[in-house]
Formats: sequence, C-alpha cells, structure tokens
Amino acid sequence: MKITSDQINDLNNKHASRLNEEYDQLANRLVSRNIDLNDLDDKLSTFQIAIPSWALGTGGTRFGRFSGGGEPGSLEEKINDIGLLHKLNNSSGFISLHIPWDIPENYDHINQLAADLHLKFDSVNSNTFQDQPDSIHSYKFGSLDHHDNDTRQLAVDHNKEVIDHGERLGAKSLTVWLADGASFPGQKNFRKAFQNLSLSLQEIYNHLPEDWKLLIEYKPYEPNFYSMTIPDWGTSHLLAQQLGKKAYSLVDLGHHLPNTNIEQIVAILMHQNKLGGFHFNDSKYGDDDLTVGSLKPYQLFLIFNELVEGITNTDNITPAWMIDASHNLKDPLEDLIQSVEAILIAYCRALIIDQNALAYAQQNNDVAGCQEILQDAFMTDVRPLIAKNRLNNHASVNPLEAYRNLNVRETLIKERGSKQISSGL
Amino acid sequence: MKITSDQINDLNNKHASRLNEEYDQLANRLVSRNIDLNDLDDKLSTFQIAIPSWALGTGGTRFGRFSGGGEPGSLEEKINDIGLLHKLNNSSGFISLHIPWDIPENYDHINQLAADLHLKFDSVNSNTFQDQPDSIHSYKFGSLDHHDNDTRQLAVDHNKEVIDHGERLGAKSLTVWLADGASFPGQKNFRKAFQNLSLSLQEIYNHLPEDWKLLIEYKPYEPNFYSMTIPDWGTSHLLAQQLGKKAYSLVDLGHHLPNTNIEQIVAILMHQNKLGGFHFNDSKYGDDDLTVGSLKPYQLFLIFNELVEGITNTDNITPAWMIDASHNLKDPLEDLIQSVEAILIAYCRALIIDQNALAYAQQNNDVAGCQEILQDAFMTDVRPLIAKNRLNNHASVNPLEAYRNLNVRETLIKERGSKQISSGL
Amino acid sequence: MKITSDQINDLNNKHASRLNEEYDQLANRLVSRNIDLNDLDDKLSTFQIAIPSWALGTGGTRFGRFSGGGEPGSLEEKINDIGLLHKLNNSSGFISLHIPWDIPENYDHINQLAADLHLKFDSVNSNTFQDQPDSIHSYKFGSLDHHDNDTRQLAVDHNKEVIDHGERLGAKSLTVWLADGASFPGQKNFRKAFQNLSLSLQEIYNHLPEDWKLLIEYKPYEPNFYSMTIPDWGTSHLLAQQLGKKAYSLVDLGHHLPNTNIEQIVAILMHQNKLGGFHFNDSKYGDDDLTVGSLKPYQLFLIFNELVEGITNTDNITPAWMIDASHNLKDPLEDLIQSVEAILIAYCRALIIDQNALAYAQQNNDVAGCQEILQDAFMTDVRPLIAKNRLNNHASVNPLEAYRNLNVRETLIKERGSKQISSGL
Amino acid sequence: MKITSDQINDLNNKHASRLNEEYDQLANRLVSRNIDLNDLDDKLSTFQIAIPSWALGTGGTRFGRFSGGGEPGSLEEKINDIGLLHKLNNSSGFISLHIPWDIPENYDHINQLAADLHLKFDSVNSNTFQDQPDSIHSYKFGSLDHHDNDTRQLAVDHNKEVIDHGERLGAKSLTVWLADGASFPGQKNFRKAFQNLSLSLQEIYNHLPEDWKLLIEYKPYEPNFYSMTIPDWGTSHLLAQQLGKKAYSLVDLGHHLPNTNIEQIVAILMHQNKLGGFHFNDSKYGDDDLTVGSLKPYQLFLIFNELVEGITNTDNITPAWMIDASHNLKDPLEDLIQSVEAILIAYCRALIIDQNALAYAQQNNDVAGCQEILQDAFMTDVRPLIAKNRLNNHASVNPLEAYRNLNVRETLIKERGSKQISSGL
Repeated sequence: MKITSDQINDLNNKHASRLNEEYDQLANRLVSRNIDLNDLDDKLSTFQIAIPSWALGTGGTRFGRFSGGGEPGSLEEKINDIGLLHKLNNSSGFISLHIPWDIPENYDHINQLAADLHLKFDSVNSNTFQDQPDSIHSYKFGSLDHHDNDTRQLAVDHNKEVIDHGERLGAKSLTVWLADGASFPGQKNFRKAFQNLSLSLQEIYNHLPEDWKLLIEYKPYEPNFYSMTIPDWGTSHLLAQQLGKKAYSLVDLGHHLPNTNIEQIVAILMHQNKLGGFHFNDSKYGDDDLTVGSLKPYQLFLIFNELVEGITNTDNITPAWMIDASHNLKDPLEDLIQSVEAILIAYCRALIIDQNALAYAQQNNDVAGCQEILQDAFMTDVRPLIAKNRLNNHASVNPLEAYRNLNVRETLIKERGSKQISSGL
Repeated sequence: MKITSDQINDLNNKHASRLNEEYDQLANRLVSRNIDLNDLDDKLSTFQIAIPSWALGTGGTRFGRFSGGGEPGSLEEKINDIGLLHKLNNSSGFISLHIPWDIPENYDHINQLAADLHLKFDSVNSNTFQDQPDSIHSYKFGSLDHHDNDTRQLAVDHNKEVIDHGERLGAKSLTVWLADGASFPGQKNFRKAFQNLSLSLQEIYNHLPEDWKLLIEYKPYEPNFYSMTIPDWGTSHLLAQQLGKKAYSLVDLGHHLPNTNIEQIVAILMHQNKLGGFHFNDSKYGDDDLTVGSLKPYQLFLIFNELVEGITNTDNITPAWMIDASHNLKDPLEDLIQSVEAILIAYCRALIIDQNALAYAQQNNDVAGCQEILQDAFMTDVRPLIAKNRLNNHASVNPLEAYRNLNVRETLIKERGSKQISSGL
Repeated sequence: MKITSDQINDLNNKHASRLNEEYDQLANRLVSRNIDLNDLDDKLSTFQIAIPSWALGTGGTRFGRFSGGGEPGSLEEKINDIGLLHKLNNSSGFISLHIPWDIPENYDHINQLAADLHLKFDSVNSNTFQDQPDSIHSYKFGSLDHHDNDTRQLAVDHNKEVIDHGERLGAKSLTVWLADGASFPGQKNFRKAFQNLSLSLQEIYNHLPEDWKLLIEYKPYEPNFYSMTIPDWGTSHLLAQQLGKKAYSLVDLGHHLPNTNIEQIVAILMHQNKLGGFHFNDSKYGDDDLTVGSLKPYQLFLIFNELVEGITNTDNITPAWMIDASHNLKDPLEDLIQSVEAILIAYCRALIIDQNALAYAQQNNDVAGCQEILQDAFMTDVRPLIAKNRLNNHASVNPLEAYRNLNVRETLIKERGSKQISSGL
Repeated sequence: MKITSDQINDLNNKHASRLNEEYDQLANRLVSRNIDLNDLDDKLSTFQIAIPSWALGTGGTRFGRFSGGGEPGSLEEKINDIGLLHKLNNSSGFISLHIPWDIPENYDHINQLAADLHLKFDSVNSNTFQDQPDSIHSYKFGSLDHHDNDTRQLAVDHNKEVIDHGERLGAKSLTVWLADGASFPGQKNFRKAFQNLSLSLQEIYNHLPEDWKLLIEYKPYEPNFYSMTIPDWGTSHLLAQQLGKKAYSLVDLGHHLPNTNIEQIVAILMHQNKLGGFHFNDSKYGDDDLTVGSLKPYQLFLIFNELVEGITNTDNITPAWMIDASHNLKDPLEDLIQSVEAILIAYCRALIIDQNALAYAQQNNDVAGCQEILQDAFMTDVRPLIAKNRLNNHASVNPLEAYRNLNVRETLIKERGSKQISSGL
C-alpha cells in the first residue's frame, strides 16, 4: 500500500482554514514573547525519530498475545509500514533494525526501497537475549557477561556481524541491550560478570568502524529479576568511559526504578558528552512499553527540556532517538502515530521555554517563578505549530485521522491477511 | 493587610483586552465542540477549596526548616492570609482548622472575621500525633489504636472536643488523620490495633452531630515506618462501612505507595458513595507535600476526570476539598496561589472532556481514540477560561502577578516582622 | 518414574545419626523454652501445600523462554511429577489444576492416579486471560468486566465449567485471577468495569456448590499496565463482602505495589474472616515469580506469624495454600523443592515464637523486646526439626540432595525427551 | 556512669556453661565444613563500627519527636555513652563527630577521654543542610552546589574547618553528605549545580591532608523532593573519579530508590577500588533510619557477602563503617546494641559462606545450588560464635540483657535528668 501526496492534500484541505487561523493566533502570542518561529519551524522539520522494525507487529506479555491483522511479515513490509508512517507525519525517517530478525537478503534492494520512501537506517540492534534455533551455546545464563568463553565469544561475534550488516545499510551505530544478569542471589559473581562484560564490549568496540558509535543501554530488571549486569546509568557510563570516545550511554525511558529522576540523568550524561541514544515509551509500573506521552507527558517535557538544553549548551552529539514500545492493545501504526506526535509536542514545548527568564529566576532563587516559566510552556497548546509544519511539508495535518480515513489497516489486512505474525517479540 | 477591589481592577485592566481576545478564540472553539460555557462558568465560580490554617507558615523537613518572613502568628492572622488569597482568586473560600493549634479564644469574633472575608469553616482536624505539653499520657506508641485504655480515651476525648469547637464555627465534618502504627515488626498486634481503633472511632462517631460527617484519612507510612494502622483505602473504607452512613474515606494524594492508581480509588469510593474528602498536593517520592500540579499534572487531570464523573453519575456527596502541602522553599501564599490555579486548570480540563465521544470509544474498544479524547482536553490551554471567570467575579486575572505587584509579602513582613513562626508543623 | 521408600530410606540412613544429634540439641533448647514439640511435629506433618499443574514446566518472560528437558506433556505426567515431589517431602499433597490446560479426559482414571500418589485436588483455576483457539469472542479488552455482554457471558460460562470439572475431582474452591484492566487512561470506565465484574462474579457465585468457596485474587498491574479491575485487597474484599459467605480474598505474595506491608493485609483479612487463599513466591521488583524465600525470607516469616496468629485466634478458615512461581532458570522440580522447604522453615519458625512474651512486650511498649522475640525465633536454625519430621514420615531428610542423587531429571528426560513443552504459560 | 568488667563478668557467668555447650556444638559443625574458627574469631574481635555522636539522642520525624530521658547533653556525655556501648559489646570502638554539633572545647581532654574508653575518632561529618544562627548566607537553596559564590564559599570553608577539627582528633576522613538539590522542576539547572558542586569539592579535596580520604555520600531524595545534586552512586562515583585517589563513594543503606540492588553497587564500587564508607540502618519505605537488620536481614547478609568478597579479592580499602539510624521509638542505646549485633551476625554469616562451593556452582550454572550455599550460611545460627567471642574479650555475652540488668538508662536519667535533649536532628 502507498499513500499519495494527493490523498494527504485532500484531507489537509478540510483543515487548512481553521488550522491557519489557530496557527496565526498562536504565532502572534509566541512572537510577542520573542520566540523565533522560523528557527522553531526548522527544528520541527528536521526532527526525525527512528522506528524499530519490530514495532510494526502486535506485542504481548508473558500472559499471552492478542494479535491484530495485517502485520508485516518481511523486512520489505516493515520498511513499507514505516514509509506509510513517514509519509503521514514527516518525522519518522529512520529505521532501526534488529538482527537476526531483519537480516536483508539483498542489501541493494533494501537500500533502494528505503531511499524510495525517504528513509535512512539508524542504529542497528543485536539480540543475545534469545537462543537462535541451531545455536550450540545458550544465552540462558548470560551472553556478553558469561563465564563460559565460548558462549561469550558467540555473543561477541554476533555483535560484530550486526555491525557488518549495519555498515552495508549506512547505519552509524550499534545499540547493545543486554538481558544478562541473575534472578537469584549468589547466581553470579557481580565483579566477574562485570569484568567479562567489559572484555566482551572491548572486543566489539575494536570492531567498530571509525565513524561509528557504540550505544550501551541499561535496565534495572527484567528479564532477570535479581540483578542485571548493566542495571543503571552509572554502570553504563563506567563502561563507556573505559571503552573510549566512540562509546556512549543510551537511556530508555522505561528502564528505571520507581521515581527515578530521568531528566537529571539526561542532563549529567550530556554534561559528560556521553549521551548517545534515547528510547521513548511510557510507563506507570515498570518497562510497560506504552505509547509515548500516554501516562507522564510532563516528565516527557522535562526530559526534552534537558535534551534541548544539552544540545544547545554542551558538546554532546545529538542522541539517536528511537521509539521503543510494545503495542499490545492498539494498532501498532496508530500507536506509533500517537507516540511521534507526543514527542513532537514535548519537543516543541521545550523549544518555547523562555530560557533567559528561567536562568534569571534560578539565579534569584525564585522557585515559584521557575515553575511558572516551565508550566507556561507546557500549558501552551502547540498543536497548531506542529500541524502547520506538516502542512508546509506536505504531510498530514492530523496523521491519526488520515490513517483512519485512508483505511490503512483495512488495506494492509486485505494485502497481507489477518493471521500473519511479525517477527520479533 | 487588605487588598481592595480597586487594586485588583487596576491590575486586571492591563490584561483585559488581550484576555478577552484569547477567551473569545478559545470560546469559539469550545462552543463548536458543544461545550456549554455557561455551565462551565458556573462550576468554576462556585468551586471553592479549603486552605488549612497551618499552611500559611513555612514548612520543614526533619533536617531543618528555613523560615521565611511575615508568617501569621495568631488564628486571626491566619484567617486574614486566607482572606487575601480568596480576594485574589475567588476560589479559596474555606478554612480548615487544626486543633489544638487553632482554638479560637472568641468564637463570635472569629466567625465575624471569617464572614467579613467571605470565608467559611470547612472540616476540622484533630491532632493525636504530638503530645501536648502537660499531657499525662503520651501518643508515642499510638493514640486511637492504643492498647492502653486511658491513652485511647484521651485521644477519643480530644476528637470529641474538636467536634465541639467545629460546631461553634459552623463546620460540618471532622477529619481524622492518624499517625498510629509501628516502626518495627512485632511492635503491635495488627488485629488488636485495628480493633482498638475501631472502638475509638465508634465513640467519636457517636458524638457526631446529625448533619456531620466523619472523614477517615489513610497513609501507608510516615511517621511510622513499618506499618500504619490505617495504611490504605481498603482499611479506611472498611472502617467507614462499619461505622455507618456518616463515615467516609478521605483521599490525600500523597498518601500512597509508589505507582498507585489513585484515580481508580477515587472512582471506586465514589461508586460506593463513600468518598468524603480529598487533600491535594503533589509528590515524586512519598508524602512530599509539594505544590499541587508541580510534578504530575496529568495524574491530577485524570483524578478530576473521575471526580467529575462521580459527582455527575453517583449519589456520592461532593467531597471536602483541601490543599494539604508543606511550603518549605516557596512563599506559602505563592505556593497556595499556584496550587489553587493547578486545581482549577485540572478541573476545567476535566469539564471539557467529550464524555459522549469517550463512552462511544470505550464501547468500541477504540483505545487510541479514548486517549485522543482525554488528551485533547488536557492539551487545551484553558487558562483564559479561568482568568475570564475571575475577571467577571472581580478577582485577579493573574493572582500570582497581582500578589507580587501588590507587595503582599513585603507588607506582611513589615506588619508582623520576619521572625514570627506560625504554629503547626 | 517412581521413587521408592527404600531409595529414600537408603539416602536417609546416611544422615540419620548426625540429624538425630542436631535434632536432640535443638529439641533440648526448645523444650527449655516451653515449646510443645509434639504439637509442632503434628503441625508440620499435616501441613500440605498445593502445586499448580503448570508449575512443572519451564517458565518464561516476554523476552523468551529457555526450556529445560523432561517436562510433563500430559495431565498424567504432571500429576506424576507432583507425586515425586510429595514422595520426597511429604508436604506437597495437593494439586491445583488450570482449566482449560488440564481438562481430564477420564475423571476416574485421574482421581485414581492422584489417590495412588496420596494427592488431592485443591482449588481449580479458570483462565480468561488468553483466547482459546476457536473462540468467537476475545478477552483482549476484558473478560468478566467486559462491556460486551456476550464476551462477559463466555467468561462466566467458562468459570462455571471450571467449577463442574472441579467437582468431579473433589476440589472445593474456585480461584479467579483476572487480567482484566486497561493499559491506557480513559480506556475503561472504572465504575462500569467494576459493576460488570460484580455482576459476573455474582453469577459464578450462584453456581458454586454449597460447600465450595470462591477465592478472588487481586493484582495491581500486568498484563494491563494502567489499571487492573481488581488491583488490591480492598477491591477484592469489597467484592467478597458483596457476594456473601462463600466468597473470600486470595493473597498472592507477588501482587503488590513496592513496599506494601503484606503481613498486615493478611492480619486484617483474617480479622474479617475473609482470607481464603494464599499464593507463595518471592520477588524483588514486581510479580517476579521467583522461588519462595529466595529474596525476602524475613518477610515470609512475618507473614507466617500472622497466618499462625490468625488461624489460632480468629474464625478464619485455613487458607488454601499454593506455590505460584515461574521457573525460568532452575529445574522446576528443584525450584518447587526449595519453595516448599522455605515455606516449612518460615512456618516452623513462626510456630516457635514466644507469643506470651511477645504480647507482654507489646503491652509494655517494649519495642526492642518485641524485635528480640521475633528475631530469636527467626534466627533459630529449625532445619533439624523439619528434617526429623520427614525422617519420621518416611520422606527424604534432604529432598534436593535426594532428587539429585536419584537422577530424577535425567530419568524424566530419558522417559519424555528433552523437547516436550508443558502446557501453560 | 561506668560499667565495670566485674559487673560484666558476673552477668556472663550465668550464661557461660550453656554458651560453651552451644558454641562447641556449632564449632564442631563448622570445623567439619573446613571453617577456620581462629581466623573467624580474629575477624570478629577486630571488627569495629563507628557510632555517630548524634545517635545517642532520641530522633524524630517532621511530625514531632517523643523524647526519652537521660540523653547526653555534651560531647563528653556522648563519648561516655559510646564508651558504655563499647564496654558491653567490644565492637563500637569508633566515634564519628558532626560539626558544628560536636566541636570540642578542649582537644586534649576529649582525646584523653576517648582513649580511656578505648575509643578512636572515625570520619568527621560536615553539616551544610542547616543554617547556623548568625550565618549571613543561607543554605536554603543549596550549599556546595549553590550558584551564589559567597554561599558556596561559606560551605567550602566549613568543610575545611571540619577537616581541621578532625585532624586534631586523629580522624582520617571527611564524610560529605549534601542536602543540595531542588524540590521543583526548573528550580535548578542540573548541569550548573553539578559543576558548582564539582568546583567546591575540588577545593575541599585540596585541603585534605595526605593520608586522609574524602567520602562522598549520595541520596535520591529528602530533604529535597524533586532532585538531589548527588542522587545516586553513579554521580558520587563520577565526582570521586574526577577528584582523584583520595576521593571515594560512601553508601548509606537507606539512600536508594525502591528495590535497588545495593549489594551490586557495593560490588562494583569495590571492583573500582572506590568504596570508601558504609552507613548502616534499615528501612522499608525510604530513608526510614530504623535499627539495622530489623526489616531486611537477608539483604544485609548479601551486602556483607559482597563486602567480604571485595575486601578479600580487590585492592579496595576497608570502608569506614558507621551506624546511621534515627532512634524515634527505642532507647537509643538499646537500638545501637541491636544494630551492632545485627551487623556482627550478618558479617559472621558472610564469613562462613563456602566460597569455593559457591564459585563451583556459579561455574556450572547451578542456580539452585548457589542459593543453597548462601542460605545455608544465612540459616546457621551464629549467635554462639559472637557471644563466645565477646566472652573471650571480656565483653558482655548478651549486651542488651546486660544493659537492662545494669539499669543503664535509669542511671543516666538520674545523672542527667529526663528533659535534657541531645544536640543534633
């Protein structure tokens, strides 16, 4: 299935006049507060977030999975789905592949397909948390941190291969998320596991092309329930420091203990020029992997405040952004549309914070004033800015509405059937 | 100090034209979505939230207290402060007294003072979590749940007296918050403590005037750190059921374990017609007692959604609303201004939820649609509605700005000095 | 595979002399503290815990599953595994079946098999958290709480059938665990969901035989990640109250928010004579389903203190005990052996608490003393009491050692192969 | 008050025969498992834990304080109390002073007093979380992280003075715990606060004598409730790395988010040779500051397992141990007696873990076996080992019983009165 610009234009036309009115009203207010709307517009236009290939299928929990229909069964179909998304919102221009789920059979073909849809390949992801069918070693008790050298080497070699696949697709970073850890006290020696992991990462790091980055993800629990070998940003950062300049930490919103101040972690990592990636989702209890912004939109805004602050005021690279959610109940494409929208709204609100006033209030210990400044930006209804930006870029003013009006899911079900199950979790 | 209507009008006049413009733009949009603006306006005008007498002074933690200046030293001064607040925002028309901190010396005088400031007395609060100077029994190991009958009776009698004080001020409910519990396993027999508490509450309940309510607060921990005798809504509800029709549960936002779904508790208690009171504050870690809406504005909105839903669709009484925060860093009056504002915003947003569309989406398992409907209301910048409502009611369009422009704190410091410390925590 | 008494005796004989010595030393000490060893011994001998049929296979997480070998493929094989366990430890004399995973083809045959192994059927469990292959309605958006009457009826009828199956096996209770809830704000109307659930339970309750119990489990999150329709003991208790005398709450150790005081919930439910069942496991983060006692043995002891206290001093029935864990890394039978052992140790320690001294210390606010009394019991190494009890009952002194020495797993793999996967999660 | 060796001997004599019997029985078992009892005994004899000077008075919460009697009012009385404790248990040979609460008037006198009681001065603690009476700058909005240079300098200078005081008492390390942080989003710029803090610490570090250590404590929340400037071990470690060889992290058991795996933090910090100090207490909800071992004795054991492992296998210095609890309900000296006892028990149990067997089981992925090995040590009732060690060292076999029999508290109340309140929190 393809969505044409004409289809989008037709749908947009119905909204244009009201949108223009709302945009003008908002623009007037923002201009009077010295917001540079052109700069804002440029930033919105160039903001692109990666979609992981496995997020196009229905997710599940350990208690089962309720599949939807029309799921993509091949890498080509996954890329096509992201193309549909990007056509609608102009902000999903990156694909993040998971190996071995997404090994291309023909690189040229895949590269061409992506290019046709204006998509690029973002960070590639390795998988050492599941055994592959014919593997002679098992990751049941660890992979990169394993005490058994052969198992460890298998995991190291897999990561090297992922880099090689990525190179042929133009990717520039490898994301390592590890399930390694222990579910019971005593099961592992923490220090030995850390040391083994450190050695493994060094070997992978040495295989990185000069212009690549290694992104080290952390997570406090699940699937191991007593300890994870990279449980927190402190451990991730320690490893990244030891490895060298090309190694960075990656923050996943859902990978924190209850009540963690994630925005502070973002700020400190950027202060150290060591924030390499960011995975978006939302959660109430754990790694719930819900739609971005569906539970804690203010936290998301505070995080974007730090991201914007860090990008502006530090030498930190712009992190690799990715949505990392599990779509158990919603249509995966609808979920992704809502997630991208929530990210854009948080980003846009962060961009209109009056940073000078904030710095002044901070300097004067005007705590109530600081709150007013942040919340003024947060309460501003920036949706017209984003919609107008999309209108200008020939994307859909209201992507979710367009998705439904264009019967995308129904068409995909017709094309692919209702039983096909996407590879992945 | 008094604030005059003229002073407020002068300040409002500067905002009027821009406010009217913004209001009209928003009103147009809401009317096109079938929102009844008159009804909304009525609801905003009549919404009143209680201010506890002790919230006018600087709060502290166990690590110390950094006092501000101009704190009220007498009940009269406390009432006066709430009068200032109410004059500015027209939404703080209730006072909630804490006995023995606020025992009036002259009831007629106090009643007249309150009436002059358009204030009424809301729920009265007992205090059995501190020993009074000459007490012969101590609450160190419990009060209403104590195994010692004399100590228990002291606490019961105190609560009866609080009712008597409240009656003379026109209050209609008693709020019981207990620190009772244990800090170590084995310290108390859970069942006996529950039974003693149950007997004590029965005696207090029997003393209640016919038209009064007993509001039973719960809290999982602090100041006891192993167990609290009323730790959760289930226990509070159980006690309220046993006592009878006049007994209700009271929900304090900060009194929950990490990640609790508080809005669901609100819904179920209202479904049982047993939600009697609500204490507002905000928190990230525990009973942090921060400014309402400063950390989790979306949660606050979801709670108001349930409150509105319950008030509309159940026989539950309208709960007694109160702000229950501790102002450690901000000027207490500024903190209260921000808190009331956050509550009004959440309430107003909840009122513009398209309930019909939501019910329809729920009926169709349109999960993404449900989210869109809630978030559309949440993202709407309703501040012009609230400001316009205040303009119409001769209160301040922007209370915090007015508070600062009128040099309220500076004047209070001049009047009262910078060292006076308000009674309370 | 069968384990003979001779095999066990041979293994026990090696331990007998040292065990007798250790037992005598301990017995002397306990007798000097007025512990009634005969009574203790009787209680240990009669204590039986149910094993759920699905716990015999390797568990998994949503990130995958690493199967072991020799898993039982049929109900007969599952019963046989529990028989092996019971033969070893004499404390696993109950089976808890899950329908539809364990529908017997021939009841007489199954009843006879169980009787031969000295096993009885405990509570039967329904499953409405997964769709059955040919179902025309889906539980994706709810089951007993569903707004759609047909889906709700399907779930109700399923529960009735489970009761019918249970009756033919001599079971006396139905356990209802619901996945019903919502993963996003607004997805469900809390009050309507509660009301629908209430109606469904009433219908199931009405189908209960006179001497049956309905056990209502609660859980705060997972698989739904915003709200669960029965999130906490308060909701479960409310439903049980409304249904009537045969309805009870069931507490699962892993189904609580962080830091919940579970022993207090146990105490209060027993005080209300409403604790009907208890599911054992252990966890650090959420519903981790780890081996009982592997993470928080002191909490387990404190819970048993309340269970013993409640059984002794209230009219509460003895709850239906069950192990409810997921064996992701350990051999399931080894995990169960360790779990039963941990439960017996906690139970035995609770039985030797000096309750008179504790009551006296409580009465005197001797907080340090209360702690000493509890911890004295907890620190006592009661393993010789339990081992000796098993020796007397012709079970294994050291079940885990025996399991390994008798090569149980190796034999099962030989019999069943290494690829067979047990039904269930 | 003084306790004489004769008094202790008299009390010990009543226990000696039973203790010797129990010791012999246990010793036999341990020797048969190749435990080196002489080595164990040496380790127990030399283990000394610091008592903070402020822990001798009754603690409180923000909801009030229920004082006991006989509290020490001067530094001399505090030292005397620790002397009593050390006389009883032979394991409390260190004092940790808090400046400015404990500034000696006469160093020689204080040094002599401590020496007479066989006490040494451990780490000294600064206090920048409260304003001193005549201070011209306030720590209300920060101290070492303050944006105001003068306030920052005040805090820096205070820390330098604390070092100077410590030097004159023979202390060898400075512990810095900071309340610095923010209670509201936006209140502080995270990166600037970190940078200011970093500069301040550098200046303090430069003032350290050659043989001193700087111990950097972390805490996620309280008294600030949105962010703390050193919230976690990662930040503490980052700062310690930047400062240099003499800077270390300090772990306080209560300063972690819910469910944190603290033992893993200990292991990794020791692996980096950067664990400088450890503060003991226990908690269920937050920084509850309860008696060590009263809530989570197994966690304490697991932490000691890592401490022992790290001391044995890394170059990490032996951390400065201190009890850091608040005695709200118990007699402070009884609370400390119980805390020291719990620490010794955890330490002793950790020392009898069969490390060879554990390493072997880990190597073989024998997860159930690893658990058995740890729990076998944990379940062993090691109290006779500790009591016997004390008997040999002329300390009390049962310190709590001796404390009560010798009427220590009653005597102190007679000497000091019941109203004196110890300085500190």
